[in-house]
Amino acid sequence: MQDAILALTKYWTDQGCMVVQPLNTEVGAGTLNPATVLRVLGPEPWRTAYVEPSVRPDDSRYGENPNRLQTHTQFQVILKPDPGNPQELYLGSLAAIGIDVEAHDVRFVEDNWDFPALGAWGLGWEVWLDGLEITQFTYFQQAGGATLDPVSVEITYGLERILMALQNVSHFKDIAFAPGISYGEAFGQAEYEMSRYYLDDADVAMNRRLFDEYAAEARRLLDARLPMPAHYFVLKCSHTFNVLDARGAVSTTERAKAFGRTRALTRDVVRLWAERREELGHPLGVAEALPAATVPAELPSVTEPATLLFEVGTEELPAAEVRRAAEAMRTALTEKLAATRLGHGEISTYATPRRIVAVVEAVEPGEPDAERTVRGPRVANAFDATGAPTKAVAGFARGQGVDVADLGRAVIDGVEFVVAVKTDVGRGAVTVLSELLSSVVLELRADKNMRWSDSTLSYSRPVRWLLAMLGDVGVPVAASSLASGVTTRVHRTAATPTVAVPHADGYVDFLAAHGIVVDIDVRRGQIVGATQRLVSEVGGTVDFDGEAVLLEEVVNLVEQPTPILGSFSEHYLELPDEILTTVMRKHQRYLPVRDGAGALMPYFVAVANGACDHDAVRAGNEGVLRARYEDAAFFWRADLAVKPETMKLGLDRLAFEERLGSMADRTERIAAVARELGDATVATPEGVQASGDRLVPLTGEERQTLDRAAQLVKFDLGSQMVVELTSLAGTMAREYALRAGESPSVAGALYDMEQPRSAGGVLPTTVPGALLSLADRLDLLVGLFGIGASPTGSSDPFGLRRAALGLISVLRAFPQLRQVTVSRALRVAADVLAAQGIEVADSALAEAHEFVIRRYEQQLLDAGHHHAVVAAVLPLADSPITADETLAEVNRRTGDPTFVELAAALQRVRRIVPDDTPATYDAAHITEPAEVALRTVWEQVGAALAGTTPDLARFAEEARPIVAPIGVFFDDVLVMAEDAQVRAARLGLLASIRDAAAPVLDWRALGTALAKD
Amino acid sequence: MQDAILALTKYWTDQGCMVVQPLNTEVGAGTLNPATVLRVLGPEPWRTAYVEPSVRPDDSRYGENPNRLQTHTQFQVILKPDPGNPQELYLGSLAAIGIDVEAHDVRFVEDNWDFPALGAWGLGWEVWLDGLEITQFTYFQQAGGATLDPVSVEITYGLERILMALQNVSHFKDIAFAPGISYGEAFGQAEYEMSRYYLDDADVAMNRRLFDEYAAEARRLLDARLPMPAHYFVLKCSHTFNVLDARGAVSTTERAKAFGRTRALTRDVVRLWAERREELGHPLGVAEALPAATVPAELPSVTEPATLLFEVGTEELPAAEVRRAAEAMRTALTEKLAATRLGHGEISTYATPRRIVAVVEAVEPGEPDAERTVRGPRVANAFDATGAPTKAVAGFARGQGVDVADLGRAVIDGVEFVVAVKTDVGRGAVTVLSELLSSVVLELRADKNMRWSDSTLSYSRPVRWLLAMLGDVGVPVAASSLASGVTTRVHRTAATPTVAVPHADGYVDFLAAHGIVVDIDVRRGQIVGATQRLVSEVGGTVDFDGEAVLLEEVVNLVEQPTPILGSFSEHYLELPDEILTTVMRKHQRYLPVRDGAGALMPYFVAVANGACDHDAVRAGNEGVLRARYEDAAFFWRADLAVKPETMKLGLDRLAFEERLGSMADRTERIAAVARELGDATVATPEGVQASGDRLVPLTGEERQTLDRAAQLVKFDLGSQMVVELTSLAGTMAREYALRAGESPSVAGALYDMEQPRSAGGVLPTTVPGALLSLADRLDLLVGLFGIGASPTGSSDPFGLRRAALGLISVLRAFPQLRQVTVSRALRVAADVLAAQGIEVADSALAEAHEFVIRRYEQQLLDAGHHHAVVAAVLPLADSPITADETLAEVNRRTGDPTFVELAAALQRVRRIVPDDTPATYDAAHITEPAEVALRTVWEQVGAALAGTTPDLARFAEEARPIVAPIGVFFDDVLVMAEDAQVRAARLGLLASIRDAAAPVLDWRALGTALAKD
Repeated sequence: MQDAILALTKYWTDQGCMVVQPLNTEVGAGTLNPATVLRVLGPEPWRTAYVEPSVRPDDSRYGENPNRLQTHTQFQVILKPDPGNPQELYLGSLAAIGIDVEAHDVRFVEDNWDFPALGAWGLGWEVWLDGLEITQFTYFQQAGGATLDPVSVEITYGLERILMALQNVSHFKDIAFAPGISYGEAFGQAEYEMSRYYLDDADVAMNRRLFDEYAAEARRLLDARLPMPAHYFVLKCSHTFNVLDARGAVSTTERAKAFGRTRALTRDVVRLWAERREELGHPLGVAEALPAATVPAELPSVTEPATLLFEVGTEELPAAEVRRAAEAMRTALTEKLAATRLGHGEISTYATPRRIVAVVEAVEPGEPDAERTVRGPRVANAFDATGAPTKAVAGFARGQGVDVADLGRAVIDGVEFVVAVKTDVGRGAVTVLSELLSSVVLELRADKNMRWSDSTLSYSRPVRWLLAMLGDVGVPVAASSLASGVTTRVHRTAATPTVAVPHADGYVDFLAAHGIVVDIDVRRGQIVGATQRLVSEVGGTVDFDGEAVLLEEVVNLVEQPTPILGSFSEHYLELPDEILTTVMRKHQRYLPVRDGAGALMPYFVAVANGACDHDAVRAGNEGVLRARYEDAAFFWRADLAVKPETMKLGLDRLAFEERLGSMADRTERIAAVARELGDATVATPEGVQASGDRLVPLTGEERQTLDRAAQLVKFDLGSQMVVELTSLAGTMAREYALRAGESPSVAGALYDMEQPRSAGGVLPTTVPGALLSLADRLDLLVGLFGIGASPTGSSDPFGLRRAALGLISVLRAFPQLRQVTVSRALRVAADVLAAQGIEVADSALAEAHEFVIRRYEQQLLDAGHHHAVVAAVLPLADSPITADETLAEVNRRTGDPTFVELAAALQRVRRIVPDDTPATYDAAHITEPAEVALRTVWEQVGAALAGTTPDLARFAEEARPIVAPIGVFFDDVLVMAEDAQVRAARLGLLASIRDAAAPVLDWRALGTALAKD
Repeated sequence: MQDAILALTKYWTDQGCMVVQPLNTEVGAGTLNPATVLRVLGPEPWRTAYVEPSVRPDDSRYGENPNRLQTHTQFQVILKPDPGNPQELYLGSLAAIGIDVEAHDVRFVEDNWDFPALGAWGLGWEVWLDGLEITQFTYFQQAGGATLDPVSVEITYGLERILMALQNVSHFKDIAFAPGISYGEAFGQAEYEMSRYYLDDADVAMNRRLFDEYAAEARRLLDARLPMPAHYFVLKCSHTFNVLDARGAVSTTERAKAFGRTRALTRDVVRLWAERREELGHPLGVAEALPAATVPAELPSVTEPATLLFEVGTEELPAAEVRRAAEAMRTALTEKLAATRLGHGEISTYATPRRIVAVVEAVEPGEPDAERTVRGPRVANAFDATGAPTKAVAGFARGQGVDVADLGRAVIDGVEFVVAVKTDVGRGAVTVLSELLSSVVLELRADKNMRWSDSTLSYSRPVRWLLAMLGDVGVPVAASSLASGVTTRVHRTAATPTVAVPHADGYVDFLAAHGIVVDIDVRRGQIVGATQRLVSEVGGTVDFDGEAVLLEEVVNLVEQPTPILGSFSEHYLELPDEILTTVMRKHQRYLPVRDGAGALMPYFVAVANGACDHDAVRAGNEGVLRARYEDAAFFWRADLAVKPETMKLGLDRLAFEERLGSMADRTERIAAVARELGDATVATPEGVQASGDRLVPLTGEERQTLDRAAQLVKFDLGSQMVVELTSLAGTMAREYALRAGESPSVAGALYDMEQPRSAGGVLPTTVPGALLSLADRLDLLVGLFGIGASPTGSSDPFGLRRAALGLISVLRAFPQLRQVTVSRALRVAADVLAAQGIEVADSALAEAHEFVIRRYEQQLLDAGHHHAVVAAVLPLADSPITADETLAEVNRRTGDPTFVELAAALQRVRRIVPDDTPATYDAAHITEPAEVALRTVWEQVGAALAGTTPDLARFAEEARPIVAPIGVFFDDVLVMAEDAQVRAARLGLLASIRDAAAPVLDWRALGTALAKD
């Protein structure tokens, strides 16, 4: 290990890095060493490399866990400004410590970094070595809330990880630290004893006092304008907090306060440091910006139509950006070309993580000339009585640079004007494209954008090269500091990483010849094909449809997909399926392999990038998975040793939202809401609808299940497994509950309550589970709306949209819960919150209601329902299942002429009757035959519908008889009679029809939706 | 600088060292990193190398001082067990960082290490590079109070120092830290800000609280048996203490308490760690002891007398041990050879720092045979009546292995015994010497002894080789793991550092040919000669007599003296002489150069070892001296900016002895005692002796001087200069006082009070200075005896012997202070202590008195006075000056027959009169002529002496008439007459003579001293 440190140190000093020593106070990461966190600020250049033992009290495991240490060793590199080729430098460093980067699969996988305590964030990657995360690689964008200029590259190696892989050992203690001494021999005792301190023996009261002392001293030192000692004390604060946290001594309130305090201190340290450096006149100088690139004054010209090839070379884009980038490129080119007169053929775009490629066929050699008519004065004003040009027309001619004699005339909107007809000379294709492509680059944008060494460009990841050719002619393009060329970059490990491109034609094949598959769908096809071949050898299959999201990601993590089949020990199959697949998908992006019966097999498919030593890469990936599974098995065993009730006690320490208490508070509320809703289901017959036959009250067993599950709500959030793999919440609850002797129904309810996890996700299958699921989402919605934390724009940190969608989905799926209306459910949640002293205003509740209904509306629209039909049933959405049924009925009756007529009739009624008309009438004034007929039929219908709120089907049947009388009525009777009493009676009759129809759906909103179909 | 770190790291890892990271909590030295302080314990082997930024808040200088930083960088190496050649390995490391060890003067200069807080100590060196201390090199002997086995070698490089020298820069900020970045650029701001924190801004109250918190936590963790986290908290304690100290916030009491607390904690940590490692079964294994060396069963024999050459090769002995080693070798060989029958010629011994050489001429080839008579039974018992041997004699013969017939007879003390006469066959010389020389090695002992890799040997420094030859024959000698050879080691930088020795004869020349001057006095002669030549070139001289101590040291710091003349900038001559010479002598062992008038010249002579590049070595030494002078000048200027009174306020913080308060308390007492003694000098006429004409009361000016000086007592202990160069205490007081506008007499008194510094040192020259000097020593003596801290055996940590000698010397030198008797002075000091609440028991005072008088006695004996004369005047020693005068008088009268007779007469009187005889007589019973004559003469003498305590001269003159009458009296009169009244009168008469003579001196003790001369 020490050799690796020496080699890295040597390598980076050769790259001009200054070596500093680890900080002599405890830090959680190398980033916190002043050599990083302070030096990245301001304009001074800085290059450093150092080791940083990083203390994470929470990771204490007494040295027992193979991968987890209370102090692990980071090797940290800062390059400021970004040298332009930090990835290549980094790969060199791997080679320096003996990693064969050609044989292994080294990849840059999106991983962004956000450190609110520092007011800092950056974009970058985790670097994978055969699937093992060995390095964090970040372009620092902000710190202390200030935008960093220049941007620093931060490279953080996890040395234990790297060494375990290099030495092929499975426990950190087995790392050969120095000749003859293992890591465990050297540090085992310290690891055990410090773990003891952090987990068991630290004096909580003392550490609390220390925290306050340190914070106060840091504040004093800030006031004294001494950022460096202040920083030390902030670090001591943080470490003390981490100790308290590891000791399980931080309550939610304390956590929030402590975070707030250290965050404020840190920001002030960072700001003060920057100020002080400025006051000192930036002793290390100021980094120079890259010079702007230029294009030659004379651009080449072409004579024949030719293919345009344009490539934007980037560092590894996030997988999700790859397809988007290709599409954005197509859109940009299409629009921009359309804005020119340059003729061209088909536009194709492609993308890999490292390039966005556009190919435009048959680009004309230039724009045609174009005539343009410029309007001058009216002819009437253009010439005087003698026919001589007026001053006005002379001025116009002069302005247009033509003789008056050359001016023409044109009639525009019936008026005759003097006009100048001018010719715009077409530009050469290269000229047009040079400018156009430059703007494409300058306007590149992604979901999240960053800056790097370039002073102007901004994109998802740094753009490092441009390739632009028209046929075999280079198109000079300058975008900020970048100038295009006629070369491209292929695999970094290729013998010649940069190759000249001979011609725009055939570029896709050219790249293919260099091992780069630029077409996304071709890559997908290759992966699917090769994977099928691999897994068929072991009699397995991969569910590509089920893994569509993963597959799309995998396709866009590589330029040359190389599926490799790996295996793991069968004994891990004892772990729940979801654990195994979650690890494979989320952490490793492996495709799980199943047998014919759908059961997991001890295999996986990893998709490496490019040619590599398959055996080495397979072994590496297998090792990573083994370590992860070992970890999971460790958690599994550890968790099984703890009773669910005990585990749940830990939720007290889990922060939720300061004003809403801890996670324990929240689970209490969820339980209360679920029980209350359950009670409602059983005990409120007055809410039972006419179609009450569909209401299934809770059975005794369901009741018991709900009560028990409510006691254990979310207990698995206290498990090590869920702390590690949050997406397994619910899944682990089910597994742990079952193994703790709970009934399958209780376990199922606990699982169900976390469903659906996403829009379209699996729904709860049992009523108790559904009730818990609803309660969970209700508490979240009402709580957060209650404290004013409703989502705004794109910001929805608590996932309220997802919660509302889930709420609606569950309500729609459970007819048994029909009487759980949205408004009622929200009210229950509000009452429960109030019982915990958290008052929710009615306005907030209304807001939440509206928010939920909007989600429902969106669901319907997304499902393709006609917007008018959706609008028509929306008033019923407080009971989404009722609205659903109504909507289904509307759709069913779309082709039924009678229903269409009924709807038209009811709309006619709705239109003519003012909103405030009461639904009463004096029968004495109903005298005309048509109105008498209507009244007679209507009273029969009314009698049939009396006392219920009918559903649409029944209403449509019962009300069918009124269609004809209404038609006659409108034909024969003047509703707005002169006689007020007569008018009132007629309107009242219609209003009574209106009101009877209103609860069924919004007939007016339905509009002509039916007729159109 | 980082290259140096990399090079050192690489070098030491190649030597099997494990690299660890600096500790992530503040430490004052690399030793405190667990990788040293804990790992040196117990039997486990350990090799490590690491960088340790060492925080010394007290060294904070805002980055302004060129050589002093609040955090300096140590590079620490631990080799456990001692590899046998650590010095050679170390020199290799210097070469690795680019130091040409052949061109430069690299030396190992005694420097021992004692860290009471750790219960730790070790012996070793500071390593000099051209006079610059660049490394501490220590053999750890104890830690936590436990003897270390195996012994660890600790090498601590001071990187800033080394780099400043390597890069030839004079300020640490100018060190090139990394390419393009200087140390100052990289760390200047941190240095300034952390200095601000430590010196000005640290919150004192908070740091006090932290200290308590940390200490309590450390104790808890010890109770929990967790040494590692406990160690962290002890370190935090120490650092916090250092912060408080730098802030000037540690009172004496606090300091003592804090030290006690951290010491106890540290010892417990160390012990607990050792215990835990044992419990863990010593995971790193147990270091193996070196195997014992053996000698062949068959030893070579020689046939002719030959020269014996014996060399014990060591690592650099302390200079003071070199001469002693040669002498001890001579004594050992002389005695041990005498105990054999091996004939030999002259024994010569020599020594250098690296070898002790003995040459014994003409060693006989073997011992002669010797006959030995063994006594058996008496003849009377040996044979029965028949003349046949008895069982007794048969048994004797059997026991001796001879036939009865071969037994002889011998008369012993008049009794005839049967005897066996046996021949002891002489052993060969090689056999004799092999055993003898082995015992010499095993019995090597020095003032302070240490252990190293060898399991048995113990000496001042490690013994690394043995050379033993008789003529050209190797004498096999085995001592523990060492076996002798016929090679020696010459300079480590020689092309062949180990050379074969052809023959014992001519070894001194052989060594000389290899550049090693083995004879101490020859080295001295070479140094004196070469130095004189060098300094005469610049018209200077060196006072070799005045520099005798330094010269002896210099002679024994080298094997091949190479005096080099260096110079320094004249402007430093503005600094006081003593500063310049103190730095030269104490720190650098340079000989100061003076001009004809005795004034310092801007030159010095450094004595390098062996051949070297004189220019490089000169430049190096000049650089070191410049830095030291720059430092001194810095202190000088800083101190001058502070008024003496202000400086004195700092003494409050200087610890003295816990029970005796701070140094400020002590200076208050000294002032009070001095003033009291001064008052006595003036105001107590009743104490004035008959010889009062010699009493000179304080003049008014002296009085004023004393009063003012008393206010400033020891103020310079608060100066930076004295903190740095303690031996300049007093000197700096004088200089600073003068420059602060004090009168020369006040400045002189402050200087005087520190005199004499050592036995035979310069004495005060003024009465006020003498009074302060006395007061200083009195307070020390009475205070420490008062609290029971009297010196025992060789332990005299407060220098009480020196204090008592100084006290006596001053009293003897100042006749004006005659009435300041020892007992009275001690009483004054006790009274002053009592006024501060420190009671001194009478018994303690008596003890102190006895202690002082014994020192006086020793002074007299050391001066060569006859012990009987000394004993005779000792009763007068309470006034040493009186005793001195009496002693002088005795000596003067030694040849005076009358005086001899008087003494004899008085002794006769003393002998015959019982001690309890009253000195009165009834004249009526004095009747015999001889007694009447005596009485008559005596009464005349008595009248002449009446009313005074005569000094010896007067008494001798006045009493002279009684000599003859006493003779007659003893001849004619029977003192012990039958008649009781007569007897009483006669004894009474003699007793009156006795009593009159008694105060003059102890006539009985004088004995026959006079007669013998």
